[in-house]
Amino acid sequence: MSEPRFGYVSPETLALFTDRYELSMMRGYRETGHTPEATFSLYFRSLPTDRGYVIAAGLEQALAYLRDLSFGPRALEHLREEGFPESFLEFLSAFEFTGDVRAVPEGTAVFPNEPLLEVTAPIEQAQLFETLLINQIGFQSLIATKAARMRDVVRRRGDDQTLVSFGSRRAHGTDAGVKAARAAYVGGVDGTSNEAAAEAFDLPVTGTMAHSWVQSFPDERTAFEAFVGVYGEDSVLLIDTYDTVAGAEIAVDVAREMGVDVRGVRLDSGDLAALSRTVRDILPEEMDVFVSSGVDEFFLREFFADGGVADGFGPGTSLATSDDAPTLNPVYKLVAVEEEGELRPSMKLSAGKVSYPGAKSVRRVVDDSGFRRDVLARADEDTVGRELLVDVVRDGDVVYESPPLDEIRDRTLETLEHLPPDVRSIEDPAAYPVEISEGLAETTERVRSELRSETTG
Amino acid sequence: MSEPRFGYVSPETLALFTDRYELSMMRGYRETGHTPEATFSLYFRSLPTDRGYVIAAGLEQALAYLRDLSFGPRALEHLREEGFPESFLEFLSAFEFTGDVRAVPEGTAVFPNEPLLEVTAPIEQAQLFETLLINQIGFQSLIATKAARMRDVVRRRGDDQTLVSFGSRRAHGTDAGVKAARAAYVGGVDGTSNEAAAEAFDLPVTGTMAHSWVQSFPDERTAFEAFVGVYGEDSVLLIDTYDTVAGAEIAVDVAREMGVDVRGVRLDSGDLAALSRTVRDILPEEMDVFVSSGVDEFFLREFFADGGVADGFGPGTSLATSDDAPTLNPVYKLVAVEEEGELRPSMKLSAGKVSYPGAKSVRRVVDDSGFRRDVLARADEDTVGRELLVDVVRDGDVVYESPPLDEIRDRTLETLEHLPPDVRSIEDPAAYPVEISEGLAETTERVRSELRSETTG
Repeated sequence: MSEPRFGYVSPETLALFTDRYELSMMRGYRETGHTPEATFSLYFRSLPTDRGYVIAAGLEQALAYLRDLSFGPRALEHLREEGFPESFLEFLSAFEFTGDVRAVPEGTAVFPNEPLLEVTAPIEQAQLFETLLINQIGFQSLIATKAARMRDVVRRRGDDQTLVSFGSRRAHGTDAGVKAARAAYVGGVDGTSNEAAAEAFDLPVTGTMAHSWVQSFPDERTAFEAFVGVYGEDSVLLIDTYDTVAGAEIAVDVAREMGVDVRGVRLDSGDLAALSRTVRDILPEEMDVFVSSGVDEFFLREFFADGGVADGFGPGTSLATSDDAPTLNPVYKLVAVEEEGELRPSMKLSAGKVSYPGAKSVRRVVDDSGFRRDVLARADEDTVGRELLVDVVRDGDVVYESPPLDEIRDRTLETLEHLPPDVRSIEDPAAYPVEISEGLAETTERVRSELRSETTG
Repeated sequence: MSEPRFGYVSPETLALFTDRYELSMMRGYRETGHTPEATFSLYFRSLPTDRGYVIAAGLEQALAYLRDLSFGPRALEHLREEGFPESFLEFLSAFEFTGDVRAVPEGTAVFPNEPLLEVTAPIEQAQLFETLLINQIGFQSLIATKAARMRDVVRRRGDDQTLVSFGSRRAHGTDAGVKAARAAYVGGVDGTSNEAAAEAFDLPVTGTMAHSWVQSFPDERTAFEAFVGVYGEDSVLLIDTYDTVAGAEIAVDVAREMGVDVRGVRLDSGDLAALSRTVRDILPEEMDVFVSSGVDEFFLREFFADGGVADGFGPGTSLATSDDAPTLNPVYKLVAVEEEGELRPSMKLSAGKVSYPGAKSVRRVVDDSGFRRDVLARADEDTVGRELLVDVVRDGDVVYESPPLDEIRDRTLETLEHLPPDVRSIEDPAAYPVEISEGLAETTERVRSELRSETTG
């Protein structure tokens, strides 16, 4: 029996957020003296269901991790107890990243097989990062994409309703709670309900009231009067605790009798499109209608199609978990390894999981009508279009300044405008063209034949 | 432009892991002098797709949170910047939980509308916990359930293959990574690949090698020799980088030539059931076969049905995200509030979201054949069966000692044995009977009529 533990992942333990096999391999590379330079590429193999694009996010956290990564006393003690030898612990205690990283900036649309990030470093360093980089970039890209889909449904109507991420309670743990709020902002929502996320990332934070406020008073009118007494014009009154239409009438009454321009009301249950129209007719023009409960991109499309009227929405569970597609399944694969002093392209042949060898260049071909196609090329190849991968770490030093989130968010919104409309469909989207360059196709074919002749030879 | 931030949720900021509206309501309760005692109940309204039961998990983290909760300088400074008045910040700086909590122990099967946890405290305290308690208990219960389903598929065959959670890279952030590993263990897996989870919760941790190890050497044989040279009998060789069958033959060769009883091999792609049989025939008896890639309860059923042979599995993404049902949607609802010195049952009438009022008792009726039915009753009602809710916090003090995880895991395995087999089906499970007691039915009817006559009066 012991005291309950919360189980924080802290700066003291973040270096341990890796899989045992990364550490086993690191130790193995060192003990065998096999420490070639290597390039690892982080990408996803296919788009999640109904996604035509993915919005890259999480680079800031990846860079903070690579900058700060160190094995302190607590991490080393754990590994000592697990039986790692002292020589390896000494290596870890002096561990510092000395390699290079290229990455696509956050808020950029990316497609299957395009690296979101590439690490080049001695293999016993680069190996370690797999678990954490996939964890942070994969999750945030997933949520930024979900948010962008919702924002896009609203914007395609020419509308600009407020979207606030309400889902941190349903996020998978606390880190997901704050990172989902950040990623949702990157993807185009306007703020979060979560105070820790607001504190961590300077996000706008808003909130209304819960049913418990209303229930805790003898009746709804008293509850509304009490709230408006404290919050005045900032009050948003939740009107569905007992009867939504009666609630709207009481809200209007209370505002009038107290002489306060109450900001608005929130609906959280029932046929929300129909109720929103009824409530809109009851409210004076200056009072807003906010809608929550089950909000996602499909809900928004239906809500508007059914003639729903609202000034803002609070997407929750669906935004914080990307519930219809809860993983991006990114991988972090060795694509090049030093042989005789040179980085040589590498790949595996595992059935159904073939990848493109070598460090990459991702080029985007743009014209007046927007993004036309991408070309996935060898990093050393001169081809068409604008390069998406930028240098973010050089010789272990972060050389990229993460832009303020507002700027990243603007980049996402601009990205959405430049993507073909049919690629942005929220169901069965068209495929955005990603071509393999001549150079990359040749290299892939060459490496594959070499491997085939070796393994069958 | 600023330095990249990782965005840790730390003991300094955990109190902020709440929604703005909880803090707004707390402030409102205080400023209006409306601070009745209240009971909040944490439960889920319906089972996720294909689930016949949910395994409760996460109580230890809930208790650590309630025990340690305080608003330190960093949290207070954030709230000051957000405009909260000094009087409220003073209240928060002295905040300490003084209430009572009852909860079902981890590893217990629970069903819709049954409280996993009930908090009774002055409302301005109990309100605050909603976001974090749902976040921790909801997620861990989801993952413990997913793990239990996988363990159950194996056990129903009379088998006991090793299951190790491999999915922390695909979990939603770092907290999910370590909590999924904990919850999966609670649900019946044998260990984790994640080193931070092992450190936080003393979990068994294991790992093999990645394709990058194999690719980084000139050929597969050299890669295997190098690994066995370091890890000897502990080596598990990944054999699908180029050709799985050839890889198995090379693994056997290397073990024989080096004279080492290599532990086994891992398959990570292709037709895993068919390959596992072929590989089994190639390997000597003492070498084990481990299987990863796409492992979940449905995969396991198919794998065994197709005659697959393995000694262990590494479920990853699916286990860490519960990808087929990524949320439990728990709620934390006001069920009783003090009126004239007494806690009176309370409920809301919102369409499609009706709940049962009052503090609850959850009784489990058990006979020699296992669990027969549950009775959801009023807390003060004397009815049949064994009570599931136990006192865990009294007057703010944690009075419940969280058992070691092994003990919780044993409870889960025992629970599975006592649940009717058709409730444990992984598709379209039968409904386990949960009856509403006479007393609770009466109270619900009475509160509902009182509310109806008030709101229509």
